Amino acid sequence: MNFRSDNTAPAAPEIIAALMKVNEGAASAYGEDQWSKSLDEAFGALFECEVRVFTVASGTAANAISVASLTPSWGAVLCHREAHIECDECGAAEFYSGGAKLVLMEGEAAKVSPAAFREAIARNERGIHSVKPSALSVSQTTEKGAVYHPREIADLANVAKSAGLGVHMDGARFGNAVAALGCKPADITWRAGVDLLSFGATKNGAIAAEAIVCFDLERAEEIARRRKRSGHLFSKGRFVAAQLLAYLEDDLWLKLAHRSNALAARLGEAASGYLSHPVESNQVFIRPGVDALAKLRTAGGEFYDWGSAQSGEARLVVSWDQSEADIAAMVTLLAALR
Amino acid sequence: MNFRSDNTAPAAPEIIAALMKVNEGAASAYGEDQWSKSLDEAFGALFECEVRVFTVASGTAANAISVASLTPSWGAVLCHREAHIECDECGAAEFYSGGAKLVLMEGEAAKVSPAAFREAIARNERGIHSVKPSALSVSQTTEKGAVYHPREIADLANVAKSAGLGVHMDGARFGNAVAALGCKPADITWRAGVDLLSFGATKNGAIAAEAIVCFDLERAEEIARRRKRSGHLFSKGRFVAAQLLAYLEDDLWLKLAHRSNALAARLGEAASGYLSHPVESNQVFIRPGVDALAKLRTAGGEFYDWGSAQSGEARLVVSWDQSEADIAAMVTLLAALR
Amino acid sequence: MNFRSDNTAPAAPEIIAALMKVNEGAASAYGEDQWSKSLDEAFGALFECEVRVFTVASGTAANAISVASLTPSWGAVLCHREAHIECDECGAAEFYSGGAKLVLMEGEAAKVSPAAFREAIARNERGIHSVKPSALSVSQTTEKGAVYHPREIADLANVAKSAGLGVHMDGARFGNAVAALGCKPADITWRAGVDLLSFGATKNGAIAAEAIVCFDLERAEEIARRRKRSGHLFSKGRFVAAQLLAYLEDDLWLKLAHRSNALAARLGEAASGYLSHPVESNQVFIRPGVDALAKLRTAGGEFYDWGSAQSGEARLVVSWDQSEADIAAMVTLLAALR
Amino acid sequence: MNFRSDNTAPAAPEIIAALMKVNEGAASAYGEDQWSKSLDEAFGALFECEVRVFTVASGTAANAISVASLTPSWGAVLCHREAHIECDECGAAEFYSGGAKLVLMEGEAAKVSPAAFREAIARNERGIHSVKPSALSVSQTTEKGAVYHPREIADLANVAKSAGLGVHMDGARFGNAVAALGCKPADITWRAGVDLLSFGATKNGAIAAEAIVCFDLERAEEIARRRKRSGHLFSKGRFVAAQLLAYLEDDLWLKLAHRSNALAARLGEAASGYLSHPVESNQVFIRPGVDALAKLRTAGGEFYDWGSAQSGEARLVVSWDQSEADIAAMVTLLAALR
Repeated sequence: MNFRSDNTAPAAPEIIAALMKVNEGAASAYGEDQWSKSLDEAFGALFECEVRVFTVASGTAANAISVASLTPSWGAVLCHREAHIECDECGAAEFYSGGAKLVLMEGEAAKVSPAAFREAIARNERGIHSVKPSALSVSQTTEKGAVYHPREIADLANVAKSAGLGVHMDGARFGNAVAALGCKPADITWRAGVDLLSFGATKNGAIAAEAIVCFDLERAEEIARRRKRSGHLFSKGRFVAAQLLAYLEDDLWLKLAHRSNALAARLGEAASGYLSHPVESNQVFIRPGVDALAKLRTAGGEFYDWGSAQSGEARLVVSWDQSEADIAAMVTLLAALR
Repeated sequence: MNFRSDNTAPAAPEIIAALMKVNEGAASAYGEDQWSKSLDEAFGALFECEVRVFTVASGTAANAISVASLTPSWGAVLCHREAHIECDECGAAEFYSGGAKLVLMEGEAAKVSPAAFREAIARNERGIHSVKPSALSVSQTTEKGAVYHPREIADLANVAKSAGLGVHMDGARFGNAVAALGCKPADITWRAGVDLLSFGATKNGAIAAEAIVCFDLERAEEIARRRKRSGHLFSKGRFVAAQLLAYLEDDLWLKLAHRSNALAARLGEAASGYLSHPVESNQVFIRPGVDALAKLRTAGGEFYDWGSAQSGEARLVVSWDQSEADIAAMVTLLAALR
Repeated sequence: MNFRSDNTAPAAPEIIAALMKVNEGAASAYGEDQWSKSLDEAFGALFECEVRVFTVASGTAANAISVASLTPSWGAVLCHREAHIECDECGAAEFYSGGAKLVLMEGEAAKVSPAAFREAIARNERGIHSVKPSALSVSQTTEKGAVYHPREIADLANVAKSAGLGVHMDGARFGNAVAALGCKPADITWRAGVDLLSFGATKNGAIAAEAIVCFDLERAEEIARRRKRSGHLFSKGRFVAAQLLAYLEDDLWLKLAHRSNALAARLGEAASGYLSHPVESNQVFIRPGVDALAKLRTAGGEFYDWGSAQSGEARLVVSWDQSEADIAAMVTLLAALR
Repeated sequence: MNFRSDNTAPAAPEIIAALMKVNEGAASAYGEDQWSKSLDEAFGALFECEVRVFTVASGTAANAISVASLTPSWGAVLCHREAHIECDECGAAEFYSGGAKLVLMEGEAAKVSPAAFREAIARNERGIHSVKPSALSVSQTTEKGAVYHPREIADLANVAKSAGLGVHMDGARFGNAVAALGCKPADITWRAGVDLLSFGATKNGAIAAEAIVCFDLERAEEIARRRKRSGHLFSKGRFVAAQLLAYLEDDLWLKLAHRSNALAARLGEAASGYLSHPVESNQVFIRPGVDALAKLRTAGGEFYDWGSAQSGEARLVVSWDQSEADIAAMVTLLAALR
């Protein structure tokens, strides 16, 4: 019963099959192969607009390159206090941007509100003596599994645009968000005002395939340079491109995300009464107390405490390949805690 | 007849098989899986000493992280004028190091001599007003396919050590070098004074697997941080670890390198008379003139000019999977040019 | 009645006289003149220990170079939320450090407590995925005019040392702190565990003279390089050295600081009842409300609101040369508000 | 007979007088004082166009901020191999730019020719794999005392502009160049295509006063941020502004430069026969051999060898305040060597 992270899951068979299929004969290096060159079109179809797609090795790279492309080194990137770029990337955003500052905002379920955002911009606009608010970064789904509705993204992006800030979306679990919302990918990205998207596939079934989807075409050249310069341009590009193409084909990404979301909902129902937040995607946050968590672990549950070990709160992440047996067993355990 | 680069080759079947084998069930993320954790031991056995191994997405990343770990930002990294870190990585070394300077040296076949190295150190040691010579970076094999003998590496490293510089080796084609020399991997690395090695597997049969082999254990913590911070710590580490383990198993790496070296030697014989350099590994540099190169292309040969299109010089790289037919056909064409 | 900042004051006559005195004949450039070379000794006598002194053009430079010398680029520098390095230096610490992160702490009167410091270290020590707590930076006096007692500095430094962090002190108003405490300069610096001090002279009577006092001699070479590399090594070093030597001579610095502290105390008495904090040095924070502040301004008072214009709080800074007339007039105005 | 550098000279009496004159009463900090605010106009009059002027502490800072404002971090700055930014600033350009690369060009008397410049651009324009040529930096006068004529600057700038590069001029000895050419300051700057000028006053009579003159007004905001962020915005701005205003007043800068140029010409005549280059400004390069240099030193001459001590070449720099006696004595010594 491993609910530690969707990063612990294997790759989907379709992804492996795609890899094998492209493994034949010579192909141009450094993104000049036919598969890499078809990414713009494939993602363009998905997002219903012209895009430039840049594959990278990790979500951290996608986030950091994106953020660095939206801020000068003397800028500030506004994000939630629990954002992955703040907490879990060893300062990658600061490194790539040449020392921009992350300005932190509060908000329930790791979501940022327009009011908090407006306040943070105002507080930090003090002319030459302070850094300059330059970009907003939001996570979709958030680090607490919450989902921004299209309207919410648009509201935030409007605040950003009118203050001259760019908008980045950390979509490490973008598939789970779209599956939860039942919307078009465009609705929560460029149509709502997002400039750059970190599109994650690894957690949801790929081997290692993350991409920056660039809606603001004028930034493409800069992103291409930043990617190369940081060592994220793969020499054998076909292998990462093949993963992404397979991931999009026949909506594999959505199917996998729907499955993990649905299974998470079952955990959520079983844990109703001590959920930290309503379950909106494939992450379940519970706060049954320290003793109850110990009991779950004794029974074979694997998961991380949220915050300190004394918090009594834990996170259960459902992977794309989580077994029915895992879910059924955990549902029983969770229900018994009520 | 594609001789553009070994980067155009597919992955070896053993590598693909290894990938499929580890694709089962949950595994800890971010390098805590069993395969990732066995890398230190596997490389330790290969190099006959204790090492720390850090997988990254590209040779550029391996080089840049290594170099940055050997120099302060106000330092100079000495390398050959044709070094990959100078010419082909979009300034990655400068980016990762926070703005160190690459000081360029001359030398036949992209090799650096102790005399040129000593001179470059002396020329740049001018106290506080100039950058401080801090590291040497050599490529093995070099960008012109030449190979440093163990004695040559040791001589350079001795100069480095007595001047307080660290030593990095760009081993994008390390396998071809070891195959050519018939030596132990240790003989051209730590035993000769190398601190950090970029160990390349991608060109020689992997999908995307490069590693920093850290012989100076005190630098391991810094490298771990730099890797994470730059987005090169894979979340599903098992897949890159599996490639490297398969690459080492039963000396697959050496077998593949021996093959491409041997095939390149056949091209070299056929082109004797207009070789730019003797063929030492899997790269063949010829200078038959502009017209002759055009003739080769008309006959189906694919390869890059070396320098400008007017140079009349070209590079032919033999891949691990190059077909006998390719070689035979090219041998005939080359011989006809004599 | 200008109480905007001690930065608005002119230079003391002794400083100007010193400048004129050294303006004769040739002197070696770049800190090799006799005056620059005597700084180590002069400050060594003041601090009762061996030090290395590095003059720079501004407090921002002194802070940023110091902080960068105490943290790797993947480190965190812990400081108060209102610290000058966080709020007023346009991200200089991030720039100089190559993208380190400032982790903010709360605390009354811009002072950090050992408990808050310990908590902030613990919260941020999460291994490779987060930045690494590397340095503490405290301001003496603080941005709210408070003063750390020697015991308080030592307590903080003990926490720092046992967690492996270095300690920097922003002493933009170091003279006012020593004057207020009546202690030895050593008591609140190296004897209490401070590694690097930004020693400010500009606010307290110099033209432009700030220095990094380096107690940890092993860091001197790095600081020398960072200073040169950032353009803070003056070519005609005699002129900045002369200012600092005059500033120390006959305890000019202490006399000037005693004066402004004493005058500020008079303002504090007059404003008792609506002080934000007790007055401890040459800064006076009052919170008489928006209307009262408007009244003060109408009567000729010049000063900054603290926080927003709606906060009803203001800062009055007394300069070394503030006139008795200014003080008397302001005392009358302040008393009338009670 | 100190001919080591014009950096060894004291400050001109007019500069000191100006400093004393502004040292009265309160003045707004951080460049908001009346003198700082008049700099744009004063320099605008001098250069016959609208400019923005940013004072900084050193020529290194002026150069590095300028260069960083003309190149992205993945760019290349093209300059002469002997340029101050390459040889004497401890990598400041790399630091400020976030790791741009300096690409070096050859040329007699440290001058760059359009042909060499064109060739260097072409050699480095290799797409995403290499850095991107982004700026040209020329020194006026050059490090060997040579002077670019207006036509020469325009020719270089035309090459730059048509390839999309910005143009920076290192004018550490700008006064000597204008004095030598007898042209308008505009003729060798914006009228010829220069975007940013490092305008030096320190060597030619100031205490410490360097400025970035920004002709491309759109870059002003970035320069303002970079200056603040690097600690080069003086809190008591009036003192540096006063120096520059006095330097411009009544053409003090030109008078001083004319004097040192004229004195250098006398040395040049005396040394005709063994000059390394014709004397064009206030620097004299001679190559009389090792023994002859030893003789000059025995007779009391102070100067630096150029290159190594074995080169037999030396540099004599004439300062604004060099005494007639110094010149007469050195003329005699030099003539005796012929």
